This record gives sequence, C-alpha cells and structure tokens, in this order.
Amino acid sequence: MAKPKTKKCVIRFEPSGLKSEVNSGTTLLDAAHKVGIYVSSICGGDGYCGKCKVVVDDGDFKSRPTTLLTPEEINENIVLACQTKILSDMTVTVPKWHSLDVGQILIDSDASRFGKLTGKVQTDTFNLNPLVQKLYLEMSPPSVSDHTADHERLYLAIREQVDAPIIQTGFRVLQKLSHLLKDSDYKVTVTIGRRGGTTEVIEIQAGNQCRKNYAVAIDLGTTTVVAHLIDLTTAETIDTEATYNSQINFGEDYIRRIIYGEENNAFDELQNRIVHDVNDLIVTLASRQKTDLQNIIACVCAGNTAMIHFLLNLDSTRIRREPYVASAGFVPPIRAAEAGIQINKRGLLYCLPGVAAYVGSDIVAGVLATRLYTKEGISLLVDIGTNGEVVLGNKDWIVCASSSAGPAFEGSGVRHGMRAGAGAIEKLKVLPDGTIDYKTIGDSHPIGICGSGLLDTLAELLTHNIIDRTGKFNTDLGQKLSEGEDGKQYQLVPPTDDHQEIVITQADIDNLIRSKAGVFASIRVLMHSTQTKTEDIDTVFLAGGFGNFLDTKQAVTIGMLPDVPIEKIQFVGNTAIAGAKTVLLSQQALETAEQIAHNMTYMDLMSHQNYMEEFIRASFLPHTDLSLFPSVDIKLKSKI
Amino acid sequence: MAKPKTKKCVIRFEPSGLKSEVNSGTTLLDAAHKVGIYVSSICGGDGYCGKCKVVVDDGDFKSRPTTLLTPEEINENIVLACQTKILSDMTVTVPKWHSLDVGQILIDSDASRFGKLTGKVQTDTFNLNPLVQKLYLEMSPPSVSDHTADHERLYLAIREQVDAPIIQTGFRVLQKLSHLLKDSDYKVTVTIGRRGGTTEVIEIQAGNQCRKNYAVAIDLGTTTVVAHLIDLTTAETIDTEATYNSQINFGEDYIRRIIYGEENNAFDELQNRIVHDVNDLIVTLASRQKTDLQNIIACVCAGNTAMIHFLLNLDSTRIRREPYVASAGFVPPIRAAEAGIQINKRGLLYCLPGVAAYVGSDIVAGVLATRLYTKEGISLLVDIGTNGEVVLGNKDWIVCASSSAGPAFEGSGVRHGMRAGAGAIEKLKVLPDGTIDYKTIGDSHPIGICGSGLLDTLAELLTHNIIDRTGKFNTDLGQKLSEGEDGKQYQLVPPTDDHQEIVITQADIDNLIRSKAGVFASIRVLMHSTQTKTEDIDTVFLAGGFGNFLDTKQAVTIGMLPDVPIEKIQFVGNTAIAGAKTVLLSQQALETAEQIAHNMTYMDLMSHQNYMEEFIRASFLPHTDLSLFPSVDIKLKSKI
Repeated sequence: MAKPKTKKCVIRFEPSGLKSEVNSGTTLLDAAHKVGIYVSSICGGDGYCGKCKVVVDDGDFKSRPTTLLTPEEINENIVLACQTKILSDMTVTVPKWHSLDVGQILIDSDASRFGKLTGKVQTDTFNLNPLVQKLYLEMSPPSVSDHTADHERLYLAIREQVDAPIIQTGFRVLQKLSHLLKDSDYKVTVTIGRRGGTTEVIEIQAGNQCRKNYAVAIDLGTTTVVAHLIDLTTAETIDTEATYNSQINFGEDYIRRIIYGEENNAFDELQNRIVHDVNDLIVTLASRQKTDLQNIIACVCAGNTAMIHFLLNLDSTRIRREPYVASAGFVPPIRAAEAGIQINKRGLLYCLPGVAAYVGSDIVAGVLATRLYTKEGISLLVDIGTNGEVVLGNKDWIVCASSSAGPAFEGSGVRHGMRAGAGAIEKLKVLPDGTIDYKTIGDSHPIGICGSGLLDTLAELLTHNIIDRTGKFNTDLGQKLSEGEDGKQYQLVPPTDDHQEIVITQADIDNLIRSKAGVFASIRVLMHSTQTKTEDIDTVFLAGGFGNFLDTKQAVTIGMLPDVPIEKIQFVGNTAIAGAKTVLLSQQALETAEQIAHNMTYMDLMSHQNYMEEFIRASFLPHTDLSLFPSVDIKLKSKI
Repeated sequence: MAKPKTKKCVIRFEPSGLKSEVNSGTTLLDAAHKVGIYVSSICGGDGYCGKCKVVVDDGDFKSRPTTLLTPEEINENIVLACQTKILSDMTVTVPKWHSLDVGQILIDSDASRFGKLTGKVQTDTFNLNPLVQKLYLEMSPPSVSDHTADHERLYLAIREQVDAPIIQTGFRVLQKLSHLLKDSDYKVTVTIGRRGGTTEVIEIQAGNQCRKNYAVAIDLGTTTVVAHLIDLTTAETIDTEATYNSQINFGEDYIRRIIYGEENNAFDELQNRIVHDVNDLIVTLASRQKTDLQNIIACVCAGNTAMIHFLLNLDSTRIRREPYVASAGFVPPIRAAEAGIQINKRGLLYCLPGVAAYVGSDIVAGVLATRLYTKEGISLLVDIGTNGEVVLGNKDWIVCASSSAGPAFEGSGVRHGMRAGAGAIEKLKVLPDGTIDYKTIGDSHPIGICGSGLLDTLAELLTHNIIDRTGKFNTDLGQKLSEGEDGKQYQLVPPTDDHQEIVITQADIDNLIRSKAGVFASIRVLMHSTQTKTEDIDTVFLAGGFGNFLDTKQAVTIGMLPDVPIEKIQFVGNTAIAGAKTVLLSQQALETAEQIAHNMTYMDLMSHQNYMEEFIRASFLPHTDLSLFPSVDIKLKSKI
C-alpha cells in the first residue's frame, strides 16, 4: 500500500506575519509553537479546554468535530488549533487575547514591586554570609622557612576569613592553582560556594575581583518566572525582571505539562523551555547592568516541585500519580551549567528544599520570608497561584497542604477568564443602581476578567443578590440574564463597537466556587487537625502573583479566607523570590529552610477523612455555617 | 634564504626490528622514544650522563663531540643517542643492557612478594570501611502513607547501613534515580565514596551488584610502578602487577624529569606516560581476573610528591627550586577519569597526603604501614629508592627529612652500575684468597652491578683492605688495579668471551660514599634535633625497592645505617603500597594518614646548620667517629 504523501506546507500567522513550515498533517497548534507563537491551551492539546481558538483565513484543513465551538464560530472559520490538521499552505489569524506580550506592562510593574518589597534581607534574622562568595586573599609567598604547599596555603588563607572546616577543590582549579599564585604574587580572589557540609573552591582569579560579585534569585512560577539580580557584596537587589513561563504552550498547569511530557516524550523540551526563560532573564539583567555573565556566580531557585523537576529534568511523572512522590525534595547544589543555566561556567545552582510533591520550595521560601516559623502566635499562609497552597503554624509546629484549587482564579475554566494582562478587568463593582463599574489593566477596552476581577465579581454578585449562597442566579434579573450554551449567563459588560460582550456563566461560578472551596477546606482541615480556632490566628499572610491584586475583604466575603479582622490579613507579595534571596545571602538561611522543609508536616487532603465534608460545606457562599463568617453574615443580612 | 629541506628518515632499531619514521635532524634518542624503545638516559638528553650509547650499523648522522666516548667506542660506531642527529635512513643497534624487559622476572617476584607481605590489612588497627564501597539497599516503595521523595528515601536507606551525616549526589545520578528505583522495585546497589567530609553517591545500579566490588592500590615509584587489585568485600589482594615507570626516558630521577618537562613543555607527555603505565597495570589485572573495568570503583595512589604531581599534571616546577614547594600536599579526591585513569567512569582517585616537596605520600604510607606512629619506642624508617627519605619518631612526635642521596645505589653515576635486571650482580663477596665470588640475577652472564651488589662491593672492599676508610684504593693491589679514564679502577670480574670486564672506579666509590653519607647525615640530624641516641632506637624499618635486596649488615658496615643490633633492623619491603591498601580499606586510615602528614615535622637539611658537618663526617667508611660504629670497629680491627 502506498504511504500517503507528506508535503511541506507554509502557515502564515496573522497579525505577526510569522511563517511556520511544517509537514502536512501537523496540527495548527504545533505549527504555531514551532515558531514561538503563543496560543492559549490549558489541556495541552487534548481538545477539551476549548482555549486554542484561531481563525482560518485561507487554506485547506481537516478539523475533528467538537462541541466547544458554536455554529456561529464555525461559520466564521474559527477552529481549535489543536484539533485542526494542516492540508495545504494556510493563513491563520491568532486572536490577540492569546497574546502574551500584552502582559508586559503588568510584569514590569510586578517586578519593580517585588524589588521594592524585599530589597534588602533583614539582617536581624540572618547574618550576611552568601552561599557563594568571593574572598580576596593576600598570602605570603613560600619561603625557606615556610614550605607549605600552595593548595594548603590557600586553605589556610580561606580559613582566616571564613569558617570552613571542610574545603574541596575541583581538579581543574587545582591544576591551574600554582601558576596563578605565582603569576599574581599570591594575591588572588577565590570564589567559594557551600555544597552540603563542605566549602568548594569554585574559581580562583588573579588580583582583587571582589567587586564583580553577583548572583540571581529566581521564582520559577508555573505561569510567571521572576529573576532578581543581587550584588553579593552589598546584599542589594540591583535589578529585577520577569517573563511568562514559556512552557505554558504545553499546558497551563503543571499536571497538564507532565502529561504532555509523558505522551510526547518531551521532558527535554520542557526543560529547554524553562532554562531558556531563565537564561533570557539573566542575560537581560546582566546586559542592562553591564556585567559579564561570568561575574554571576550563583543562582538560587524556588518553585513548586514540578517546576524544579522540569528545570533539572528529574522524573516528574509520579507527581501526578498515587502515591504522588517527587524524585527529589532536597535537591543538592549542582553546577548551574549542568542544567544549562548561563552564569559563570563553574557557578552553582541551588534549589530551595520542598516538602512534598504538592508543597514545593516556593512554599518553604514563603515560610522563611514571612518568618512564620519564628512566631509565638499562629499564622496562616495562603499562596494562591496556579495552585493553592496553605500553611498553618508557629515556632513550634507547621502543617501544610495543597488544595486542588485549580486555576479558575487565573482565568482557566471561565468563559471570559484571562490572565492579568492589558484589557483584563481587575476590579469590578456593582453600583446601587445595578450597573457595573469596572477597571481594566492598562485602561484598555475590556477583553476578559483576570483573577482579582473574578473574585470581585463573585463577591459583588453575592452581596447584591444576583446569585444566592449556592451560587445560582436569582430568577428576577431581567435581560442581563440569558440562556447560553453553558446554561445561564449574566452580562457584566454589554458589547460595543470596540469590544465584545463579557459575561459570567453558571459554569464559571461553579468553577470559581470549587476553587475557593478547595482553599478554604484545606485551611479548615489544617485548623481542625491542630485544634486551631479562627480567633487563634494572629496573622494571615496572603502570597502569590494572584495575591498582589486580591481584595482581602472580598476573599473573606466569598469564604476563601477565614473571617479574621481585616487588619490581620497581610499582603506579602512574592514570598518565593523573597525566600530565595534570603537563602542566597545566608548559609544559615539555607540551613533554616532545610529545617523548615524537614519539620513541616504535609497533609494529603485526598486521603483525609474530613476533607470532602469540609469541601462540601465550603462550596457555598461563604459557607454552610454562617457562624464561621459573622462579618459576612452581617453584610448579607444588611443587604436583604 | 632557502630553508634547509627536512626529509623523512626511517630508523630501524636492532635487535627488535622496530622502525621509527622521523624528520631528518631528529635525535636518535627521540626516534627511539617515539616507538617506545627504552634507551637509558639519566640526564634527560643533555649529553652529560653518557648512558644512552647505541651502535650505528648503517646510515648518515651528525654527532656533537663528547668526552664521554672512548676512541675505541668511536671506532666501533658507538654514539650518544641524545647527541646524534639523523641525516638519512639508519640502522641502529640498542645494546641489551638498556633493555627494560630483562627485569621482568624480578618485577614479577617483587609483585608477588608484595602481595604476600601485605595480603590483608591488620583489622586490629583499622576497621574494614573502604573509601569507596557498594551497598545493597532494599527500600519500601512510596505509599499513600509514605510520600518521601526518592532522593531522600535513598539517603535514609544509606544511613541505615553507614554513618554518613552529609551525603551528596551528582546531577547525572540524580536524573536517573527515579527511573532506576521504579524499574528495580526499589532494590538497588549504590556505590558511595568518601570525599572530604561528605559521602558521595557515585553510582546506582539495579539489583544486587555488591560482589563486583574492586579497587586498585598503586605505588607510583620513580623507577617502578606497582599495582594491587583488591576485593573490597573480602579486603583480599587478589592479584598484583608491576612495570617500569616509562617516564624514565625523560630522566632517571624526577628532578631531571621536571627539567625535561620545563625545557620541552612536556608535562602533558609526562602525565600521559605515567597514566598509560597505570592503565596498563589496571587493564592487565582486570583481564587476568576477568573483571570489567567498570567494577573497579576506586584507585588509591602513594608516591613521592613529584610523581603525584606528574600523574595529575599539577605544577611541579617549584619542587626543584628554592624554597622547594609543592602545588599540593593534600590532594583532594577526584574522579579517576579526570586524570585519564581507566576504572569505572565515575570511580574516585585518592592520593595519600604528602608532607613536603621531598617527603611524599609514599613516606606517609610507610609511617602508616609500619605503625611507627603508634609505638612507645622510637623507630627509624629509611626508604631508599631513587631518593633516600628518613623518618624518626614514635607515637608522640615524628620528624622526617629527605637526603640528596642520589641514585648511585640504583646504578646511576657508576661505570658498571645498572638496574636490578637479569645479568646484574646482586651479591658479591671477596673470598679469603682475594678472588671475588658473585651472583647475578637470573644467573645470567654478568653485565653490571645493581644496588645491593654495589653495597656489598663497598663493604667487602673496605673489610678486605682494598679501599681504606676514605674510600681510596690501597696501592698494593697488583694487576687488578689499573688506571682508567676516570682515574683508578679495580677489576671485580675479568672479561671472558661471553662478557666484558666489570670494574669499580674511584669515581664510582666516591659517588656511593656520597649517597650513603647523605642518608646517614640525615639520620644524624634527625637524631640530634630530637636528642635521640643510637641505643634509644627500638626498630629500624628498611623500606623501598632497594631495601628488598639489601644486606642489612653491610648497610651498617659502610655506615649507611646506625650501628644497632642486627635484630632491630626489619625489612618491610614496599610500604608505599602497603599504606595505600590500608587507606583504601579504611576511611579511618585515611584520616590517620592525614593526621600523620599533618603532624610530621619536615626538616630542610640544606638549611640545617649541622647537616654539612654531619655529611662530611659520614663521608668516611663507616664514619670519622668509630665510636658510633663499635661493631664495625671490631670487624675492621680483626681484619688488620
């Protein structure tokens, strides 16, 4: 039988004009990825998230049938990119709401906020004693009365400056040591790094090179990757940069990415993407600050367990399967170049320790940065990013859990949900007359709703009786309530010539309630198992990219956070990067982070007897038990 | 000006028939080295040792004038290979006394002796706890009630078997860890190695691989390289092998080799030679014992400081220049593959610590092997190889020095001196009637005298009044004493049809006396500075390749060793390899060796005020002060 002929097809993507040459039979999604065009896809190409809609302007194709497109969309030649095979040269338009670069303004302001927030590590907690540091050594040359070998002479000089009972030196450094000492008249700069219990001599240079002494701290987020450039001599953050995680093409949450990796044998590709993102950030920072990459001698990363595994290409496949185990929680320091990270070729890469498959080093960083582990009183740390992790504890004990919150508050599974980019509704308010006021990022025309807007929406719909405590639409809402393809939907923004209508559907509301219920049920399980009452909680730390835009009152209103006095809730921003910087600047902080990770008790909610019950009780607004939310109870009663 | 034409010339070396193709203008010595033919050369090609004599049978050449050839030799077309430039194709005969392979019998018996001598390390001193070892681990797989990550699970399992507070794992091992654990049902063999204060997970394999568990101990001698293959499970030496150090072409002592390396930028070549020798030994042992090189997981070396530097290509140039410093005394463990040694590609290479540029790790190995450092009474360790190192001490203090003994007792600087190979006179006795009885190695026709024969010669000539206590020939010796080119010479063996005459010259005797005076003066300086009297010495350990054939009485007679009762003198053979094995088999032994090296006080004899005086006093037979040698005094008086 003759093999079907494969031919080369050129796909032109509008509005960028980028062309992708692929074999016929390739999907449009793959063709787009090939030339680096971002097409939103939550399901990783399985055809059931319906996010990857593009418009075919010209050319032949074959699409698999789907219920995720309306007849109108089909008429307008809209297809799911992942379900559409290319049969000829084509021209395809990628709607701009897919575009990542619209978020750039936000990312920049994010980055500068992070910079300010944690510009200097509190030296009252840890002494400045970086994981990797440069020392200038002036040694006496050997003499007739001092035959000490160069290698031992160097160690003696190092030990005069730092506490280093065990020192190791790599072979290449050892081989060049004597020549360098001779040529520099025994005046050298050594770069030393902490590896386990030992101090490694990483590099040796002639003369005093201590001023060129940088490192980067990285927050490896599922959605956003943030990098801070630190001057190790002054401990100051001298520049910051952020970018989207380009793995996003393979799934918006990490479980999807693991599945993609397994099904396509693509873990190398996943690693390449994140390493590329990190290198992009580092190169940008270095060039902006006019410093050579060779002067960046360490990189410290915090991230969830899956992201750390992707970065290092460790086996992540069992993170998503019972009994949910990581390949490594405590990753040993390695040479950054081994993972492909472009700093000094002998520079070290540290990953903060994680607790479990679903409570990663970003959460340990959060505990370190908030100093939760030092406090007499009980603190609650809630980190809502693509997942929702919850930590409860004090100086004596710490418990933690990860809720299967899902990315609803990041816009996934929500009809007009979107990431926090230009045109996203970030604030929303129902006015007394029933009209809706909103604010978009960049004051652009509204094109969707991002997380903080969704939280406002849910709270406002509840407090204005548009939905009831089960999340169902009331029936007397007039024309704004209509029947859509997903059941009932409520108009938030009417369509104009400039933008489409924006609605929230019953399905959207159900998804959002499931997410917040997951977070609150996790909090309840942790409180219950530690016999903590709401009034016992001294502080609620709200962290994460999401947290930066969250209206804390509204988070209580919908029953996501416990009903504590509002002044007890603190925004703490990106605690992952704050913790990574703390560790970078202090060996004691790394040891503390290891102790924290070691001592945190992970609770597997899925196997916990009370979790489902708590989840069901939290699947109401704010909760079945209003006595848990007295402030909301009053607010609701006053509205009736 | 036209450049002189260079042409290719083919040199055929007899009797091997090996051909070397070189450019015209190349020296015969280089042409021989190129095809691996050993031509004796002490001076490294500088043209003043006169050892590299070869016979030109055919072809054109140009030789620089030399006083080192007699008119008869010139007539017989004998040339110095290093001073002879090739002008055409040539045929050259290399006299068989150059040949290395004649020593093979001796080397084999040496090797087997070493094997027996130190077959098992005394477990009463150190527990069996090899530097590198394999552990078989059976772990419980992860479960719903045990989410421990694979990496941490592995560490817990290792710590159940061994004391390893700090464990490190290389990145490549970490990356394959989870897949391997899954595939092997969590039953694995880990290879762990000691690196400084940490335990490194070197390798991980599925199932139980503990039986394939070998290592090699190496004595890196200037002249001879010895390797023992050890079964790490039983601690038994299962095979031994030895070879000549093929660096010998670049100089017979290491100072010459350093000069050669500097002048010819040839340290890479010096390293290649010794690494090649070590690999040859390892491959021979592995193939004879039918074990895969991958099953050899560690290599432990002892050797003088220069040899360790050559092996690792560390800067050795300042070993020969004031103030005489090494690049490293305590060399950190490295991956053997980094130095080119062909064991398991992740296996470790350890070098025992040395004390100073002229007291290397072979001497520390000797102190460890003899247990000198544990004894109440004072011991003297004398290691006479290409150099002569001397150690004096007990459990409380140890002093050491290196005499510039020179290689006279290895045959260098002695007219008919030669290495211990077939045809070498190893025993010599002057009979009452004045005739000389001798024994050659392999009972071959005599072609020269090796070290133990030279020692006998010196002692016998003295006790038979052929030389006086200044080493000068008496005048009434008849025909056996004649005038040669180096002054007076005495016939030891008359010529026959089968072999040439063998003589000892006044210059030879002066050289030998200088050597023994160096050793004894060193001993005296150490004794003096520690206020040790001859009668305080409990034991004299005599070590080294030379030591194996030494007649201890004669060593006292000529005044090389102090006049202690003969039963106090112990042959200890090759203590370098014995110490290397001890360390290989016990981490505690390595720590002890480090303490020994650290605590040994090195005395620089050249800058010591008494050394020259002691040297002059020892430059008599046995010494100016006969009260130091009462047993010799009696012997000499009884002969008169």
